[in-house]
Amino acid sequence: MEYFLSYEDLEVHKCMLQDTKRNEAYHKAIFDNKEAFKGKIVLDVGAGTGILSVFCAQAGAAKVYAVEASETYKLAIEVAQENNLQDVIQVIHSPVETLTLPEDGKVDIIVSEWMGHFLLHEGMLDSVIFARDKFLRPGGLIFPENATLFSAPCSIPSLNDYWKDVCGVSMTRFSDKLKAQTCQSPKIMTVKSDDVLSDPEVLLWIDLREITVEELNLSKIRHLAVVDKPGNYQGICLWFACAFPATDTEPVYLSTDPDEGETHWKQTVIVLPADIPVEEGTPIPYEISIKRSEEDHRKYTIEVQMLDDEAIEHPEYCTCFKTRCILARAVLEKYEQNSFSNEN
Amino acid sequence: MEYFLSYEDLEVHKCMLQDTKRNEAYHKAIFDNKEAFKGKIVLDVGAGTGILSVFCAQAGAAKVYAVEASETYKLAIEVAQENNLQDVIQVIHSPVETLTLPEDGKVDIIVSEWMGHFLLHEGMLDSVIFARDKFLRPGGLIFPENATLFSAPCSIPSLNDYWKDVCGVSMTRFSDKLKAQTCQSPKIMTVKSDDVLSDPEVLLWIDLREITVEELNLSKIRHLAVVDKPGNYQGICLWFACAFPATDTEPVYLSTDPDEGETHWKQTVIVLPADIPVEEGTPIPYEISIKRSEEDHRKYTIEVQMLDDEAIEHPEYCTCFKTRCILARAVLEKYEQNSFSNEN
Repeated sequence: MEYFLSYEDLEVHKCMLQDTKRNEAYHKAIFDNKEAFKGKIVLDVGAGTGILSVFCAQAGAAKVYAVEASETYKLAIEVAQENNLQDVIQVIHSPVETLTLPEDGKVDIIVSEWMGHFLLHEGMLDSVIFARDKFLRPGGLIFPENATLFSAPCSIPSLNDYWKDVCGVSMTRFSDKLKAQTCQSPKIMTVKSDDVLSDPEVLLWIDLREITVEELNLSKIRHLAVVDKPGNYQGICLWFACAFPATDTEPVYLSTDPDEGETHWKQTVIVLPADIPVEEGTPIPYEISIKRSEEDHRKYTIEVQMLDDEAIEHPEYCTCFKTRCILARAVLEKYEQNSFSNEN
Repeated sequence: MEYFLSYEDLEVHKCMLQDTKRNEAYHKAIFDNKEAFKGKIVLDVGAGTGILSVFCAQAGAAKVYAVEASETYKLAIEVAQENNLQDVIQVIHSPVETLTLPEDGKVDIIVSEWMGHFLLHEGMLDSVIFARDKFLRPGGLIFPENATLFSAPCSIPSLNDYWKDVCGVSMTRFSDKLKAQTCQSPKIMTVKSDDVLSDPEVLLWIDLREITVEELNLSKIRHLAVVDKPGNYQGICLWFACAFPATDTEPVYLSTDPDEGETHWKQTVIVLPADIPVEEGTPIPYEISIKRSEEDHRKYTIEVQMLDDEAIEHPEYCTCFKTRCILARAVLEKYEQNSFSNEN
């Protein structure tokens, strides 16, 4: 079978298929739940080259519908054949939105690798939700089952410190230009875990069993991060983690946390136009919103707003270095000590 | 001064300026020759952001003409100012081909970072040659002074072995497609030194003091490589090394050899359509030619031809495993032993 897939198409799949953390998370999640797959009907939404469909078939599924809207479906057919699973895996060239399935049209399990950059951007979650509502039998499983999007202030030394001394040459005017350009849109880059300046905040939590498409149109948080190491506040870093169903064992996670090694998603950073030096305890109040684009539903825009420290209420127990928070902390700690003494 | 440089332009310079091996080689080569730079007039051909001009000025040059044809010249002006060298560095917005210089129009030293992928492709060597012929004082120095382009057969596991078992899934039909697309043009990629299958052969040696533009139109070798480790012959890998003048000390080299750590040039690989398993001693005869494109003089095309083993003469002392070479080797070794005995 000869057909054309562009070098770019193939490179995208190559990049995903070489992401060992991604492959291994799906593989483990599926094989840890072998009993749940045994003899079941599975729908792979956006199957691509079909690797997840092969995992499901290998784990004992009776039937896997590998649905792929692009020309890549031809590759999925070949991959199923190459692994001698053409009797189990049925590749269907169709958007899931116009798909019909035989018999009662229901499946026991949906698997999908739908996650885009900062989880939603150019992802495929709408299609998974559609498939769930139309095809998933009540009580059926979704792999992954939930997803969380995190945000935290970060330093970006590659846009900053490096340029103060490039082999003895000061190049900050260059890096200023670079930064001015980089601010224009979110950047996909690797952030070192040392460069994340505070604990992360949950920007979005998605339960794939219940979420609706409308709930994905806008996510917004106002948050007060408290810096836990000295550094330069130069951007807001976003990453996500997905959890898979666990019928027998501990749930498997697939995380793009800077702490947990690289994936092809890397992290997404919204770069600030200027640096702000911070120390341990500095409060960083910010508002971040992720909004679906009206022109192209698969795209999202991010807006970050730096807030005035006074404009946001600090939590009751705040670890920042502001006098009133230090005082409040002292009172609370004393109160806790007292309660503790009283209990004894 | 506000002006527009595209994100892409800036990213290209970022990539070069973050190449520590590149920066350090030029820095060391220039500072090792401080005496040669002291009070001299320098021409930086294709100065870009001007970092090499700053090195020269810091090393004691009396005047540096930083010639840059693109809009980047504005950045070079700012970099010179930022490093307080605006009195020494004169940035000139011009192609070197239409440049005129004050006084006798001569310079003592030319520096340039003109190297492209596989040395010549999209490089700037023609401009350096032009500058040498028009502006360099007799006996003047050129940094770098010579350059060598190497070739050797190699394995490319990322296009091959990896795909035999991707988390338990055989994906060779995918990698076949990927390879078919990758064969179409030379690929810039990182080759591990373990994946180079033989000693390299010199495909081109350039003495920048003497080479002419015409001599760069076509380079061609027929070579018999002898494999020095078992592996799969899957491509021809190209890399280069440049040597800088040494007036006092050992010459500095800038090498993109897979053995010597990564640079932003990486290596260039011509991927073969099929693998050939090889063992120690397998002779690999090939012809490789690099030809200047007639449409765009800055571009080059590469052609690799696998030769029949019988079509090429093996060297007198050949380490390959062919019976006649083993025999010839035995005879030569015996002869050498005899000469040695006779000498004693």
